[in-house]
Amino acid sequence: MRHLIDFGDLTRAEWEALYQRCSAIMDHPADFMDACRGRVMASLFYEPSTRTNFSFQAAMLRVGGTVFGFADPRSTSTAKGETLKDTIKMVSGYADVVVMRNPKEGAAKAASLYSNVPVINAGDGGHMHPTQTTADLTTITRLRGSVDGLSVGLCGDLKNGRTVHSLIKALAKFEGVKFYLIAPRELAVPEYIRAFMKERGLWFVEVTGLETVIPQLDVLYMTRIQRERFVDPLEYERNKGIYVLTRRKLERARQNLLVMHPLPRVDEIAIDVDDDPRAVYFEQARYGMFARMALLTDLANQERMDPGAVEIGKGPVCSNPNCITQTEHYLPPLVKQNGGVDCCAFCDAQLR
Amino acid sequence: MRHLIDFGDLTRAEWEALYQRCSAIMDHPADFMDACRGRVMASLFYEPSTRTNFSFQAAMLRVGGTVFGFADPRSTSTAKGETLKDTIKMVSGYADVVVMRNPKEGAAKAASLYSNVPVINAGDGGHMHPTQTTADLTTITRLRGSVDGLSVGLCGDLKNGRTVHSLIKALAKFEGVKFYLIAPRELAVPEYIRAFMKERGLWFVEVTGLETVIPQLDVLYMTRIQRERFVDPLEYERNKGIYVLTRRKLERARQNLLVMHPLPRVDEIAIDVDDDPRAVYFEQARYGMFARMALLTDLANQERMDPGAVEIGKGPVCSNPNCITQTEHYLPPLVKQNGGVDCCAFCDAQLR
Amino acid sequence: MRHLIDFGDLTRAEWEALYQRCSAIMDHPADFMDACRGRVMASLFYEPSTRTNFSFQAAMLRVGGTVFGFADPRSTSTAKGETLKDTIKMVSGYADVVVMRNPKEGAAKAASLYSNVPVINAGDGGHMHPTQTTADLTTITRLRGSVDGLSVGLCGDLKNGRTVHSLIKALAKFEGVKFYLIAPRELAVPEYIRAFMKERGLWFVEVTGLETVIPQLDVLYMTRIQRERFVDPLEYERNKGIYVLTRRKLERARQNLLVMHPLPRVDEIAIDVDDDPRAVYFEQARYGMFARMALLTDLANQERMDPGAVEIGKGPVCSNPNCITQTEHYLPPLVKQNGGVDCCAFCDAQLR
Repeated sequence: MRHLIDFGDLTRAEWEALYQRCSAIMDHPADFMDACRGRVMASLFYEPSTRTNFSFQAAMLRVGGTVFGFADPRSTSTAKGETLKDTIKMVSGYADVVVMRNPKEGAAKAASLYSNVPVINAGDGGHMHPTQTTADLTTITRLRGSVDGLSVGLCGDLKNGRTVHSLIKALAKFEGVKFYLIAPRELAVPEYIRAFMKERGLWFVEVTGLETVIPQLDVLYMTRIQRERFVDPLEYERNKGIYVLTRRKLERARQNLLVMHPLPRVDEIAIDVDDDPRAVYFEQARYGMFARMALLTDLANQERMDPGAVEIGKGPVCSNPNCITQTEHYLPPLVKQNGGVDCCAFCDAQLR
Repeated sequence: MRHLIDFGDLTRAEWEALYQRCSAIMDHPADFMDACRGRVMASLFYEPSTRTNFSFQAAMLRVGGTVFGFADPRSTSTAKGETLKDTIKMVSGYADVVVMRNPKEGAAKAASLYSNVPVINAGDGGHMHPTQTTADLTTITRLRGSVDGLSVGLCGDLKNGRTVHSLIKALAKFEGVKFYLIAPRELAVPEYIRAFMKERGLWFVEVTGLETVIPQLDVLYMTRIQRERFVDPLEYERNKGIYVLTRRKLERARQNLLVMHPLPRVDEIAIDVDDDPRAVYFEQARYGMFARMALLTDLANQERMDPGAVEIGKGPVCSNPNCITQTEHYLPPLVKQNGGVDCCAFCDAQLR
Repeated sequence: MRHLIDFGDLTRAEWEALYQRCSAIMDHPADFMDACRGRVMASLFYEPSTRTNFSFQAAMLRVGGTVFGFADPRSTSTAKGETLKDTIKMVSGYADVVVMRNPKEGAAKAASLYSNVPVINAGDGGHMHPTQTTADLTTITRLRGSVDGLSVGLCGDLKNGRTVHSLIKALAKFEGVKFYLIAPRELAVPEYIRAFMKERGLWFVEVTGLETVIPQLDVLYMTRIQRERFVDPLEYERNKGIYVLTRRKLERARQNLLVMHPLPRVDEIAIDVDDDPRAVYFEQARYGMFARMALLTDLANQERMDPGAVEIGKGPVCSNPNCITQTEHYLPPLVKQNGGVDCCAFCDAQLR
């Protein structure tokens, strides 16, 4: 692995190897205190974050590395109109690994074309968030021993949730996983996810109620529903209570259910659920740090490599208004195939 | 000591032990270069600061530790409505010690209820600032050998100054300290401080003039008076010059007077006072860093500990509009006794 | 060397020694991994930057040092009206070296008067940027073996470009350098630079066209022309294309021409020039980091030293509205001689 842009790029074997190293780090953290000694991580957060930002920083520091970067692009030259390419060329001259969160979809992919060092996608718009997925899989594996054969409920905004899309695609690499997709109709998974699941013969049901399916689940992955996601605010009001997890709803849940949430959580998990031993969302955040430590011991220790010349594009071929190609016009017009359909290689949107 | 929320919680013996370690660090800093190796400090500054923020960072770095955090909460998920509890649960999963400054009174106390690691209060609203107190006591002890028996003048805004309240309560642990409280009537110490001093039989006088008492003092602790603290702006104008320290006023001071100030200073100490050998406010800032190094070698090296379930409150019992319980409604309704009176355990305000 | 305020203060011998250490670091970086172990750099950026800020941070981290500071003064006490002197007194109590960028000219010089540790000027208004110059000279020396005898073209806004002024003054220390000053008339070098060059008998021509002189050059140093620098916006439009470097214009350039730019670059170098082997501006950024590593191994390892009392001024003698003396009135009225003329010792502006 050179860059981590999309968790889907890892094979199951690569994931197993990553998890093994993560497990070793969790068991003997002191053995890894100098694993990245002398190595420097550039942390480029073009939009606010606490969890991912701090998780990566703490991870790099705990493997003996160091960090520089920004959490607020207003204090950088981005205001002076510098391109993403130039920023990456410059930063990858200073750092051994680049971690980037950017509101534009495909930004991390774009960065990887120009960087002399590995790039890790810390979240690109509503597109991908691969290290959240490594945190999620690490949590499930560490607490349940394995992912194979589990019944996994994903609840909330399944339409806009990049962590959900990334997790579904990752869980697809395992055997016998049963997917319970719990969401209001308006916020059901996008068609391309449904197509993906069908294409791989995955077992899944789509339901609009949470309480009914809770007894079936081994894992319940909660996500936040934002008012703004509903066209009709009354629809939000009607749906609000259904997708909220309470102590009462947990009464019929399995003893070893894992309740997870990528955080931040607002009111979709009641605060008294925190004290239920099945609530593992805070441990999940900590496992995310260990998973990032495992990633960094690999990616931050690689040799520098000139990526070579890249075709210079003339403007976007993609029509997704939030694609990085809309603002960085020199990006090459890369195309990939998703299920036989031509898609933008940066943001995965279908090309017309 | 597990958390440092209020300096008043330390016994004199605990302070002596802390000062001994601080002294050792000042004498042989190289011996402590790795005292916190592998340990990570989370620095959460919800309101701006330079001194305390930098002092803690430099301190952690000089004992071999590392730091992550924010100095400006706008670049974090706080904007997304995350509770203080969730932030602390998440951050204490990444760090070995949490340092927090927050505009809400009682915020550090609240954080300590949920954190898996020690919490250090770097200032909570107008309430407490225990590490300023450790800096102040370290300065006096290092430069005068001892605190016992000193005549200490505290000058300026004694009503609103949290550093002053904390320092008075700390000096009360020593023997034979004489307190000269120098302030305009409108900004005299609050009644609860006067009650505290009477209760402990401390020797103190309250005066409105600075020049007259200077010859009596071993320590003069200056603080800033802000215009906004006076209801009547004319009152500010009338009082302005009296509480300003000049070279001339120092002519009648003792040879070994210590002139201190928590900084930042605006005009309450004239700039030509800086070159008088009795002006020690810049050394005071540096001693504050050493005092924080001593604190961190203790608190950052402790074992992680699950704090356990906390009673879930239903809203504030306290009526202080600046208490943390006003905005974090799940906080338990904790009550403490201050001089036999029921007070909020977070902000110390008297409960009605 | 105690402080680095103006590259012009270094003798040629001092530069050679600095370059030798920089070269050793580039050849064997692992040998310097702990050169600044235990040392702390304060990074005070009063105005935004990416390059210089990150370059210094990465540099300090790579020589085993640590960093604290701000990139956005809004999150500090500067808002509370603290003087530069007090900030420096406090920060130099915490750090072993201070790196400062400030929009006011002469700010770094002012800081050096009060600091207990070395101060490095990371850019003061439009005045000086000595570490950019060290980056530039390092690049030329590393890639061409020597600076002596080279034909150097400087193109763009030569009137307002502090990096250009500093580079010209630095190149003047070498033998046989030929200067091609390529700029629109309105943005030609200031008179004091012309006088400086004449005084030292330097070979230079001033031209308004880029294409014609390219075949003569060994080094082409491009800088950005901002629209706002022209009184007449039409003048900007007329001139825009002339001072832009394209692949086509490079066709007549020497095989081993070095194309440099301090970055950020907007459109003054076309993006397809990046893939020409003569384009070295990204390596230039990286060499800048190595040059800063060399600087820090010297300046961050010096002993602390009390600078002693400084005369207290009564207000500015200088009439440059952007001079630090306009806002920090206590600064001493220091005067220096530039070519026999009385100038402000902070900002170099001629005194009336």
